[in-house]
Amino acid sequence: MKKHNYSAGPCILPQEVFEKGAQAVLDFNNSGLSILEISHRSKDFVAVMDEARALVLELLGLEGKGYQALFLQGGASLEFLMVPSNLMKVNGKAAYLDTGTWANNAIKEAKLFGHTDVVASSKEQNYNHIPTNYVIPADADYFHCTSNNTIFGTQMKSFPITNIPVVCDMSSDIFSRALDFSKFDLIYAGAQKNMGAAGATLVVVKEEILGKSGRIIPSILDYEKHIKAESMYNTPSVFAVYTCLLTLQWLKNHGGIAGIEKINEAKANLLYSEIDRNPLFKGTAAIEDRSTMNATFLLNDESHAPIFDAMWKEAGISGLPGHRSVGGYRASMYNALPLESVQVLVDVMKQLEKVVCE
Amino acid sequence: MKKHNYSAGPCILPQEVFEKGAQAVLDFNNSGLSILEISHRSKDFVAVMDEARALVLELLGLEGKGYQALFLQGGASLEFLMVPSNLMKVNGKAAYLDTGTWANNAIKEAKLFGHTDVVASSKEQNYNHIPTNYVIPADADYFHCTSNNTIFGTQMKSFPITNIPVVCDMSSDIFSRALDFSKFDLIYAGAQKNMGAAGATLVVVKEEILGKSGRIIPSILDYEKHIKAESMYNTPSVFAVYTCLLTLQWLKNHGGIAGIEKINEAKANLLYSEIDRNPLFKGTAAIEDRSTMNATFLLNDESHAPIFDAMWKEAGISGLPGHRSVGGYRASMYNALPLESVQVLVDVMKQLEKVVCE
Repeated sequence: MKKHNYSAGPCILPQEVFEKGAQAVLDFNNSGLSILEISHRSKDFVAVMDEARALVLELLGLEGKGYQALFLQGGASLEFLMVPSNLMKVNGKAAYLDTGTWANNAIKEAKLFGHTDVVASSKEQNYNHIPTNYVIPADADYFHCTSNNTIFGTQMKSFPITNIPVVCDMSSDIFSRALDFSKFDLIYAGAQKNMGAAGATLVVVKEEILGKSGRIIPSILDYEKHIKAESMYNTPSVFAVYTCLLTLQWLKNHGGIAGIEKINEAKANLLYSEIDRNPLFKGTAAIEDRSTMNATFLLNDESHAPIFDAMWKEAGISGLPGHRSVGGYRASMYNALPLESVQVLVDVMKQLEKVVCE
Repeated sequence: MKKHNYSAGPCILPQEVFEKGAQAVLDFNNSGLSILEISHRSKDFVAVMDEARALVLELLGLEGKGYQALFLQGGASLEFLMVPSNLMKVNGKAAYLDTGTWANNAIKEAKLFGHTDVVASSKEQNYNHIPTNYVIPADADYFHCTSNNTIFGTQMKSFPITNIPVVCDMSSDIFSRALDFSKFDLIYAGAQKNMGAAGATLVVVKEEILGKSGRIIPSILDYEKHIKAESMYNTPSVFAVYTCLLTLQWLKNHGGIAGIEKINEAKANLLYSEIDRNPLFKGTAAIEDRSTMNATFLLNDESHAPIFDAMWKEAGISGLPGHRSVGGYRASMYNALPLESVQVLVDVMKQLEKVVCE
């Protein structure tokens, strides 16, 4: 039976990515060699890296605007360290918005570098909403935010206007919705949601913000060194980068971000409508901040959990349990999850209502 | 035609790793899901990580000796930073042996942390040998060396005896020869030579040396945090770790390190004998320091290069050109390269001799 994979990440990718990826592991480009055994400096892999980097800028609408795309390693967690290493001036300060566990982890690392001003936080409300009406100090070296909070099911629908560089962790919603990406100066994202296999980290950076911190930056953390080396400063995560290229090609062939955004909205509307309609369920995130990627919801009566769990498993759904900090359920609806999978979940929720209420 | 892959890394892996890896990309463990779309915290992947970590210690003979194995990201280049972050005391010092480009890069990063004593270097002789008769300061926080120098074709045949912790970058010869690995306190290695796909980095560390530096260590660089999280502090490079498990299983089934060492010696003897016998070629590394993994050699007469290059390409050999800092040729004979592939190269060298000398 086909699985309906709601995993929060690593997560579902397009079927053609699995098929082309598996083929490349056996024989890449009819070379007689596996993609796992070729040099990262071979013509074939350099072409993969170059096309992937170019496609990122094309899909984000950032071509010719002074940005560079890099495929690094270490996940968002290493970016928590690289961002202040590159951008926080000696004796400078940074401004962070605290919207969830990952934002909070980014803040902890920044504090090792210097004054870190948390402009607002929804921690006291278990991060169930995105704070508003905060002030970003004009003298901070940069402002950092997290566009989508996977664990708590919230998503920033707008971004503050400021004159300082804006840095955004888009790990869990990059390439899912149309934004004016030129409003951001640095975007980073672990690959393993909307982009490809775990092991690659995308960084998109406006070059003009670099080289100004006055810090001595360890080589492997220095964005300028990675740019100069065309994202080959050291051996990249070859196969993970290839899966990113395949996923980006799939996205381009499916109408790019504008095309996928419509489908993502349809999926989110379908599920949230049911959460709101069905008397057995309730959402956990503030309605205006609900994420189109991760819908978090609870049963009003926990005693229905065993039967609901049995029903969705029976329907071929996997990866639905919520994160331990929220409980209940989390339906992650990344780009590659088809609308049909959401319909299956909604049908199960309706079925539960019938069973319980009749 | 079968390729004879002499790539310096990423490089040849066992054929069964490609086959099982490709299968897992399509359907992992008959789960109906690709290994690329499952949670790293799923039962199936936790089992992969746990088995890979245990197999590392088993194969190295380090079980029950206070060591932990970790699969991290960022390659040896990130370890250049993590090692001093974790081990160099505030106002302490470290001792490094400079045997090649990568050793030198490790030294550069250590210097950002504190006094870094280069105990010996063969840089002036273009790293064509391993220095001897150096003194390791007894008051250094650790001694760092590089067991095999991929670019220059040299390999440490013995290791100094010292009372301070010994750290070794074994990226290009780990699991290739029997050593008393308990003489090392920290071993690290990029996966992409003898272990698996690029994107994973193995760290094997004796726990008792950690937690003594007095430094505040950024979370993602802190070995103790990675150990506590059982190598899942953040999302690991899932597929690369799986290929490591497959390669380690293959190694165990082929007699472990003792078994592969015999084959590696046979391959190296076959090739070096021909380099020494054939009047058209000469080796570049000091004979006593020759690497069993990477044999570097030159044509005595460069004008034979076009015909030699055409001949080995015709024979299905790939990846033979030397690194630009040495020139000539580099035959990388990692664990998965069969003896037959070396015989093909030796036959081509003999054939060249015939063509040129007749």
